[in-house]
Amino acid sequence: AETFTQSGKASFYADKFNGRKTASGTIYRPNKRTAAHNTLPFGTVVRVTNPRNHRSVKVTVTDRGPHAKGRVIDLSKKAARKIGIVDAGVAPVELKVVHRKKG
Amino acid sequence: AETFTQSGKASFYADKFNGRKTASGTIYRPNKRTAAHNTLPFGTVVRVTNPRNHRSVKVTVTDRGPHAKGRVIDLSKKAARKIGIVDAGVAPVELKVVHRKKG
Repeated sequence: AETFTQSGKASFYADKFNGRKTASGTIYRPNKRTAAHNTLPFGTVVRVTNPRNHRSVKVTVTDRGPHAKGRVIDLSKKAARKIGIVDAGVAPVELKVVHRKKG
Repeated sequence: AETFTQSGKASFYADKFNGRKTASGTIYRPNKRTAAHNTLPFGTVVRVTNPRNHRSVKVTVTDRGPHAKGRVIDLSKKAARKIGIVDAGVAPVELKVVHRKKG
């Protein structure tokens, strides 16, 4: 089976999304390791790596987005903190699917 | 009835979204005047004004997003072009609902 990998920019959820429903129907919580991706099926687990500091985090896709050019994923606050992109706001990342989920 | 107004930043859809399904079920087309907003019901018509050049455009909410801090709306390519924010990528805007739709 092929491995899904993708490079691009990540951002993260604003705090006001705490408690709001995601596109998958789950509730967004900043302290969970979740993400919004435009095409991967909900439930897919993706390793997100920050090539600037080599830190990575595994997140579960629960939502759709982002729309802006070059942007590939929106991370929960916790996941963004784990790879050190909160201060920058937007940062380059590399994605690799580690657990597939059928769409 | 109260008028919904909101200030914040707008971005716009990357070209790759052409032909993809939105959260409302409609297909995104860059040449239509549509937008993604996080809370307004689908079908709501919003006037989006760029205070830097006083240009505005009316868009229909068909999708959900954006997640990033300070961002209030993602515009279709045509709407973004109408108010002159394509080169900047992100720009401050003012929103005003002109046609309500019940959620």
